[in-house]
Amino acid sequence: MKKVPFTKADVEKWTNTYPTPFYIYDEEGIRKCVTDLYKAFSWNEGFCEYFAVKALPNPSILRLLNELGCGADCASEPEIVLAQRSGITGKKIMFSSNETTKREYEIAINAGAIINLDDLTHIEFLEKLGPLPDTMCCRYNPGKFRNTNDIMGHLYDSKFGMTYEQIKVAFKTLKDKGVKHFGIHAMLASCCLEEDYYPRLAEELFELVLEMKHDFDISVEFIDLSGGIGIPYKPDAQPVDIFEIGDGVRKVYERMIEDNGMKLSLYTEMGRYITGPYGYLVSTCVHYKHIYKEYIGLDSSCCDLMRPAMYGSYHHITVLGKEDAPFVGKFDVVGSLCENNDKFAVDRKLPKVDIGDYLVIHDAGAHGHAMGYNYNGKLRCAELLMNKDKEVKLIRRAQTMEDYFITLDIDPQFK
Amino acid sequence: MKKVPFTKADVEKWTNTYPTPFYIYDEEGIRKCVTDLYKAFSWNEGFCEYFAVKALPNPSILRLLNELGCGADCASEPEIVLAQRSGITGKKIMFSSNETTKREYEIAINAGAIINLDDLTHIEFLEKLGPLPDTMCCRYNPGKFRNTNDIMGHLYDSKFGMTYEQIKVAFKTLKDKGVKHFGIHAMLASCCLEEDYYPRLAEELFELVLEMKHDFDISVEFIDLSGGIGIPYKPDAQPVDIFEIGDGVRKVYERMIEDNGMKLSLYTEMGRYITGPYGYLVSTCVHYKHIYKEYIGLDSSCCDLMRPAMYGSYHHITVLGKEDAPFVGKFDVVGSLCENNDKFAVDRKLPKVDIGDYLVIHDAGAHGHAMGYNYNGKLRCAELLMNKDKEVKLIRRAQTMEDYFITLDIDPQFK
Repeated sequence: MKKVPFTKADVEKWTNTYPTPFYIYDEEGIRKCVTDLYKAFSWNEGFCEYFAVKALPNPSILRLLNELGCGADCASEPEIVLAQRSGITGKKIMFSSNETTKREYEIAINAGAIINLDDLTHIEFLEKLGPLPDTMCCRYNPGKFRNTNDIMGHLYDSKFGMTYEQIKVAFKTLKDKGVKHFGIHAMLASCCLEEDYYPRLAEELFELVLEMKHDFDISVEFIDLSGGIGIPYKPDAQPVDIFEIGDGVRKVYERMIEDNGMKLSLYTEMGRYITGPYGYLVSTCVHYKHIYKEYIGLDSSCCDLMRPAMYGSYHHITVLGKEDAPFVGKFDVVGSLCENNDKFAVDRKLPKVDIGDYLVIHDAGAHGHAMGYNYNGKLRCAELLMNKDKEVKLIRRAQTMEDYFITLDIDPQFK
Repeated sequence: MKKVPFTKADVEKWTNTYPTPFYIYDEEGIRKCVTDLYKAFSWNEGFCEYFAVKALPNPSILRLLNELGCGADCASEPEIVLAQRSGITGKKIMFSSNETTKREYEIAINAGAIINLDDLTHIEFLEKLGPLPDTMCCRYNPGKFRNTNDIMGHLYDSKFGMTYEQIKVAFKTLKDKGVKHFGIHAMLASCCLEEDYYPRLAEELFELVLEMKHDFDISVEFIDLSGGIGIPYKPDAQPVDIFEIGDGVRKVYERMIEDNGMKLSLYTEMGRYITGPYGYLVSTCVHYKHIYKEYIGLDSSCCDLMRPAMYGSYHHITVLGKEDAPFVGKFDVVGSLCENNDKFAVDRKLPKVDIGDYLVIHDAGAHGHAMGYNYNGKLRCAELLMNKDKEVKLIRRAQTMEDYFITLDIDPQFK
C-alpha cells in the first residue's frame, strides 16, 4: 500500500495559493534517503553521491543535496550552471556527457569538473582544447553483464562507454600524456531492484582496477557505480535495502581492494533512487467520460509527466480522501493532450472518482517535471517543496504564456 | 530518393549566422501543398483547412497559412493566442480539445472559436459558463472503422469523441437548447497513405448527416474530416495524390449530399501533411564512435526531435554533399542525451560520414520542434524559414540558459 505524506485537507489549503496541477517534493523523504545512503557507504572513505541532475534539475533540491554532502552528475552546460549556482562546484561535479561538443567540454573543464570520458577518440578531441585535466574518469561498457535487466537495452546496443580493449588503451594513453588521477564509471542497468547489482558491478570494475595496477601501474582512485538502483513503482514491489547493498559492495571491496593493499573511493550517481519516491504530481479530476471505456480526465497531461506515454511506465495513483475506499472498476486516467498516448494509467482499479477530486501520481520525483514538454501549447506546472511541518514553498513557478512565447521575441509582428 | 531543397554550400553560408542544430522550413513547399489542397477541394463551397497548430506552432508559419486561406485547429489557450496573433480569428479557429477546463472553454468562447465538443457531458459543463454558442461541432468516435490503421490505437481504446448513441443525443440536446449551426468531426486514423481514407470517412459521416436530418431535422452545415492523411517518411513510400482524395470525397458528396438536395462545407485539420515534408532538422556530426556498433554523433538530440525516441519513427537522413555517394555501412545516428533511446536512426545505411558533415533529417516539419523538450538541460534550437530565393529568416531564436531558468525566478538565492 503506497502512502501519500499529505492529506486532502492539506491540498485544499495549498490550492488556495497554488492551483493544480503541481509537483510536490517531500524534503524529509529525500533527506532520509540520502542520509541512509551515506550511512550504508560510511565504511568507504571518500564516498560521494553525485546526484544525476537530469532527474530533478531544481536548484532548491540541489542545494538540499549539497547540504547533505552530494555532488552533481551533469551532462550539459545548463546542468553545470544549475549545480554551480546551487553551491556544487569543482570536483563535486562529474561531467558524464556523450557526443560532447567543444563548447561543452570547455565549460566543464573551466568549471573544474571531473571529466567522464565516453569514448577513446575524445582524448584527441580534448587535447585540441588545451592541456588534459589532472583527473580523468573513463566510462566502461563491457558489452555484456550478467545482472543487466532490459530496461536500458542490451549493452551491445548502448551508445555509451568504451569496450574492454578501448578503456585499457585509454588509461595507458592518458597516463602517458601526464594524467595523474583516474576513475572508472559504468552504468550497466536501469531501475534495478536486486540488491546484488552494485556488488556485482563493483566486482566487475574492481577486476579492471587490478588489471590497471598490474598492466600500467595505475592506481585507480575512484569507481563510479553510477545509477541503476530502482524504486518500487508498483505497490507490490519492495524497495531495495540500501544497507544490504552497501554491505554487499563492502565485502567485494575488502576482498578485492583492501586485501590487495589498495584503497579507492566509491561514487554513485543516483537520480531516481534519491528523489523519485519523494515527488508527487497532484492533479484535479475535471471530467468523467464514459464511451467504450471509462475515463477520468485530469487537468494535467503527459506534458507534465511523460514516462507513461514514452515508456509505458506504471505510476501508482491515489485519490485523496478515498485512500481506503473500495475499488469500483477499471479506468483510464488521462490528460488533455490531443494524443492518445496521453494516459497516466490504463485499466487502473480505482475507487469512485468525482469531479473535483485530487489525484496524486506517485514516484514522480525523478524524470518527471524534468521530462515535461510544451506540446499542444501546454504550459509547464509549478514545483513545491514540503518540509517536515507540511509547510510548502514554491521552488519553481508555473510557466506563463509569455515564457512559452519568449523565443518568438525576434518577431516584431508577433508583439 | 528524397531530395533536400538546399545544398551544403547553402548551409555553410547560413551557419555563419545560425549555428547548427536548427530547423528550416521550405516556404514554397508549404505554399504549393496548401494551394493544391484548396484546388483539390475547390468543388466544395466553404472548404477550409484548419491547420493543426500543435504540428508547428510558429506564428510566421501560421501567418503564411492564414494568407493562403487556412484556419487553425487549437487545443489550448496558448494555441488560440498564437492563432489570433497570426491573424486567424473567430470561426477560423476550431477548438478541438478534450478534458477541457472551464478556463480553456471560456477563452475559446470569448475568441469566437467553433467549439468541437469531445463528450456528451460537456454540454452541461458548458452551460454553467453561459449561453451556448450558436454553432457547435461534435466529435464522433464510431468505435470501429474499416479503414483505420493502428497508428493511433484502436478506436475502442481512443479517449476521443462520442459514440453513435451519444452523438445523436448530443445533437438533439443542443438543438433543443437553441444551437443553430452544427458540424461533425472525426479523426479515425493517423498518417494514412491510402487515398480512400477521406472518402470512406466522408461516407461514414455523411450517413450521420442524413440521420440527423431525418431524425431531428438538423441540417449539418459542416463536416470536419480532421487529420489523418500521411506523408511518405520512408524513401520507397509514395506521397498521396491529394487530387485523387479530393475527387474521391466529391463523388461521395454528390451521391449522398447533393443528390439529396443538401449542401455542407468540408473542413480538414491537417498538420503533418501541410508542413511535415517541408521541414528539416540540420545538424553537424561532432563525433564518430566505434564500439559494438558504429555511431555517428550529432550536435542535436531527441530533445530536438522526439519522434524516433517516442514512437520509433523513421526519419530519412541525407548527408549534405554526399547525396550520391555510395553506402559504406550501417550506423546508429545518435544525439547527446544521456538516454539510450536518443537515436535518430538505428542500423541506417549511409555514406562515409566525416566530423563536420551536415546531416539533414527529413520530414521534421510537423511534430518536430513542437515536441521538443529540455531533458538533461538541453536548450531548444532555432527555426528558420527559407523562401523561394533560398533567403532564410529567423522565425524562432534558439533558447538561452536564461530562458530555460526563467521559471526559477521566484528564487532570490538562485540569481
